[in-house]
Amino acid sequence: MSEPHVHRDSVPLRRLEAFSDGVFAIAATLLILDVTVNGSPLSAELLRIWPSYAAYAVTFVSIGIAWVNHGTVLSLIEATDRRFVLLNILLLTFVAFVPFPTRLVALHILDDEARAAMLLYGITVTVGAFVFTGLWFYAAKGRRLLKPTADEHLVEGISRSYLAGPFVYVVATLLAFVSPLVSAALFIVIALFYLLESSLFARH
Amino acid sequence: MSEPHVHRDSVPLRRLEAFSDGVFAIAATLLILDVTVNGSPLSAELLRIWPSYAAYAVTFVSIGIAWVNHGTVLSLIEATDRRFVLLNILLLTFVAFVPFPTRLVALHILDDEARAAMLLYGITVTVGAFVFTGLWFYAAKGRRLLKPTADEHLVEGISRSYLAGPFVYVVATLLAFVSPLVSAALFIVIALFYLLESSLFARH
Amino acid sequence: MSEPHVHRDSVPLRRLEAFSDGVFAIAATLLILDVTVNGSPLSAELLRIWPSYAAYAVTFVSIGIAWVNHGTVLSLIEATDRRFVLLNILLLTFVAFVPFPTRLVALHILDDEARAAMLLYGITVTVGAFVFTGLWFYAAKGRRLLKPTADEHLVEGISRSYLAGPFVYVVATLLAFVSPLVSAALFIVIALFYLLESSLFARH
Amino acid sequence: MSEPHVHRDSVPLRRLEAFSDGVFAIAATLLILDVTVNGSPLSAELLRIWPSYAAYAVTFVSIGIAWVNHGTVLSLIEATDRRFVLLNILLLTFVAFVPFPTRLVALHILDDEARAAMLLYGITVTVGAFVFTGLWFYAAKGRRLLKPTADEHLVEGISRSYLAGPFVYVVATLLAFVSPLVSAALFIVIALFYLLESSLFARH
Repeated sequence: MSEPHVHRDSVPLRRLEAFSDGVFAIAATLLILDVTVNGSPLSAELLRIWPSYAAYAVTFVSIGIAWVNHGTVLSLIEATDRRFVLLNILLLTFVAFVPFPTRLVALHILDDEARAAMLLYGITVTVGAFVFTGLWFYAAKGRRLLKPTADEHLVEGISRSYLAGPFVYVVATLLAFVSPLVSAALFIVIALFYLLESSLFARH
Repeated sequence: MSEPHVHRDSVPLRRLEAFSDGVFAIAATLLILDVTVNGSPLSAELLRIWPSYAAYAVTFVSIGIAWVNHGTVLSLIEATDRRFVLLNILLLTFVAFVPFPTRLVALHILDDEARAAMLLYGITVTVGAFVFTGLWFYAAKGRRLLKPTADEHLVEGISRSYLAGPFVYVVATLLAFVSPLVSAALFIVIALFYLLESSLFARH
Repeated sequence: MSEPHVHRDSVPLRRLEAFSDGVFAIAATLLILDVTVNGSPLSAELLRIWPSYAAYAVTFVSIGIAWVNHGTVLSLIEATDRRFVLLNILLLTFVAFVPFPTRLVALHILDDEARAAMLLYGITVTVGAFVFTGLWFYAAKGRRLLKPTADEHLVEGISRSYLAGPFVYVVATLLAFVSPLVSAALFIVIALFYLLESSLFARH
Repeated sequence: MSEPHVHRDSVPLRRLEAFSDGVFAIAATLLILDVTVNGSPLSAELLRIWPSYAAYAVTFVSIGIAWVNHGTVLSLIEATDRRFVLLNILLLTFVAFVPFPTRLVALHILDDEARAAMLLYGITVTVGAFVFTGLWFYAAKGRRLLKPTADEHLVEGISRSYLAGPFVYVVATLLAFVSPLVSAALFIVIALFYLLESSLFARH
């Protein structure tokens, strides 16, 4: 029953994309539910909650970048198997969890609970990044699930880049023990780096 | 008016997939809205609410597995008819209901309301599983909606597996009368079983 | 600039479907956010809030049926034009509004605010049904947007059925002045009628 | 590594559409979560909160119109590059932010916090409109990403129209300093203008 068994559990790429796109889009859009304001006058409150805007913007863009990378992986894959599908569900579990620590960071980055909030944020993003890297290497190892046409140079470049990624997040997370604000700043710098890298270098 | 009537109410498979993927993805992603924290210090609170993380993770993965199985069913189907579409809507009614009992379990698994919470969780999952099995047998009976190419061995294997599934959930639900914690543990074991089964056995 | 103008504003059918499927799926799934419970003991509370379950189930199925009918309309259409797209956005405005009156009915159907809640529910559903009928007749009038292959008998049957639909909702809404409970019961009967009609009559 | 690098980061148009459709649909549908009612009698409260209905309807339709325009841009594009994808994520960051100022306007348009609420609403919509215009000009400049078949007259017409759009919003926003109610009225007029323009002029 091996062949049928494999067939039975693999999901067409098209539906994997649709489900993943849905989770990425919903997780990003739900972030706005945590931007709230109490007290008055409203104009002063709207200025006071600037960490909420920053947390919203940085996390929305970070989820967007993760979605771009996810698209890159899927575009290089010929087909899924059951383990790939389950790793993908595990990845989405972390993507959809992100709004919770984001809310905590927005609320507490300026008070003395900042360390706990940044640690939870950092752990979520870091473990999620490791799962993402695992997803890629599961597909790429021995070109297990890759398209025959996927360029070997490109595959190796992605492997190097995805291997390094999570460790940058480890550093940013550990920095929360030294200073939660510096840790938060590094997460912002990482998001900006991705944006600028593509603006400056993508076209030559 | 029989022919037009049938045509009028059947929905293209593509849109059924899109609507179902949407409901699965939203139900799973909304779970995070029920992970909340009050009180201080934050670090202690974040540890205290571990049942929320467990409920979130187990339910997210369970919805993901249900989505995989739903994908298997749709991949074997040639076309829909109106009854299949309505059974599918009934199934989604249960899928989208899951965040409510999940929230209750996360809040009450460690207090003396645990039994009521686990019973509602178990009933929701169990009835949902029976509807899912009904959806499959409606499509598979006499190969009513199946693709001509759907392998008979595969179809029979799925029928056996989907027939057994709901009864496992019946047992897990009834265990809540004995011990809500044991019931919860069994739901975790079932989710882990699906994950491990595929990791260990999917490839030979 | 007439030709370019028309082209500029029409949206490919595929994206209209994706956006509409998204709104239908989200509106239905958000309903669960309004099923909440306070007080204790939990077991008694879970029984006391049965109107919440009924409101959830009836509205989820009703949105599902509206989605099926929407699929029927789009499956008969060759292309969109800008007015059709805007009528569709107007329809979705009502679909996405439904969770609000549903929440009020669930909370108030058994107290002396039931009339106001049922009236808002009924008005929302009724006006939405009229917009839906308007969408269909805009597309079907003189076969403006229909596929050349769309069967004329089928088109006329749909026209009759969609013309009658909203008036059933008018009656159910006006009944709230006599008795909110009878009005609610009629909305349940209408949903059941759609389900039973297809179960009993769809196949011969 | 230039060629692979470009390929690595570009996302297939199909997934860009799916992710964008998701964010537009969710942002629009989440608006209903901010229509709430407290106090009694319910019938009086339901009339009192009319600004919530107006804010919901105007913003839902405005997001719908933005989605139509987004569809127009994507329908003229041959392929994406990484900068286009990132500009699109930036645009969606503003689209998904809209429910927050909408909630504030609904709550405060009739009290003395109206100015701050309308300013935040106006700034969000205006900056979003500038990003949208930037997205278009990035794609259209030197026909960088356009389909070879995209009509030059049409492209120029869109460029003129999208260049003017944001400035209308600048005026509506600045009007909040004079009168928040007049500013709100202008945003309603702009939405109605788009609807009427198409109803009256789209077909000749």
